[in-house]
Amino acid sequence: MNRKGILFVISGPSGVGKGTIKSALLKETKDIHLSISATTRLPREGEIDGKDYYFIGKNKFQKMIDNNDFLEWAKVYKNLYGTPLKNVKEKLKNGQDVLLEIDIQGALQVKSKYPQGVYIFISPPSIEELVSRLCTRGQDSQESISIRLANCKEEMEHMKYYNYVVINDNLNEAVKKAKAIIVAERCKIDNFTA
Amino acid sequence: MNRKGILFVISGPSGVGKGTIKSALLKETKDIHLSISATTRLPREGEIDGKDYYFIGKNKFQKMIDNNDFLEWAKVYKNLYGTPLKNVKEKLKNGQDVLLEIDIQGALQVKSKYPQGVYIFISPPSIEELVSRLCTRGQDSQESISIRLANCKEEMEHMKYYNYVVINDNLNEAVKKAKAIIVAERCKIDNFTA
Repeated sequence: MNRKGILFVISGPSGVGKGTIKSALLKETKDIHLSISATTRLPREGEIDGKDYYFIGKNKFQKMIDNNDFLEWAKVYKNLYGTPLKNVKEKLKNGQDVLLEIDIQGALQVKSKYPQGVYIFISPPSIEELVSRLCTRGQDSQESISIRLANCKEEMEHMKYYNYVVINDNLNEAVKKAKAIIVAERCKIDNFTA
Repeated sequence: MNRKGILFVISGPSGVGKGTIKSALLKETKDIHLSISATTRLPREGEIDGKDYYFIGKNKFQKMIDNNDFLEWAKVYKNLYGTPLKNVKEKLKNGQDVLLEIDIQGALQVKSKYPQGVYIFISPPSIEELVSRLCTRGQDSQESISIRLANCKEEMEHMKYYNYVVINDNLNEAVKKAKAIIVAERCKIDNFTA
């Protein structure tokens, strides 16, 4: 029996630990390909083109938007970020699975274009816990934390559009659950083609 | 967030190893309750009423059929076997998960009454492999194996009515996959009530 490629989307509020979970999944899961974003921002020290991001110019990015070449895209401050459709599509077509880590707005954009993906919402144990994490990591000012908190409350409302929720109260347990979702989805009858 | 109870149905052709997988799941999975069947046959040595089966008389069984008290029932040789609805319903209502191991005809009956259950088809790696297993276990005559083989081919056609397929080519791997399905289903957004 052959299997269709599956798009797994790991998403959730800022600071919830979705990046850490993604990295653990990539290490511990066989045969899953990370989707690499394109951006117009300049590479930071140590960042590699085609590995961390595809670093492209604004003109090229705009052309890709016009050609509907993104699964999703967004402007963050002055820079553009997007998920190129072509790579993802090709991998899925070849029966390969793709992992995409993305914020909630991005995930909802992706879902509107590719509803058959598997959407996993990483949730904080509570809003209070998320605030405490953002304060502890010390990268964020009081004002930025207030904004994020307000955003988070709003973002939690979008959980209902996802297929799964993984509560990140314990990182190991959360990674185990996310891995189980990947294993289970790979056993779904609907994903077999013959 | 509270969660609804989930009915997990482990099923598949005769001789595929679903009983072994069920036993491993019960040992290794927290908070799952095995559904116990009722039967009109007499207890064998060592069998305990209410643990191995509910041993009941034919009159009582017939009354339960008439009252629609079974999730499924079947006549096997001269004996009646069935899954009492009441216990399963109560556990699910209380948010507890229930595990039911059953043949394919039974699983399809259950699905018609409870489509929101999770139906897991345990598949042999191939029909040839299943024949070889039935021959090796030595409990079955040549004729009985031929009948089972024909049944199996027909039964494989029913795989499409299930949610998941777990190919039992390696028992440990098959148990891991079945466990992953349970973990994943417990993370499904649709199973949360608030």
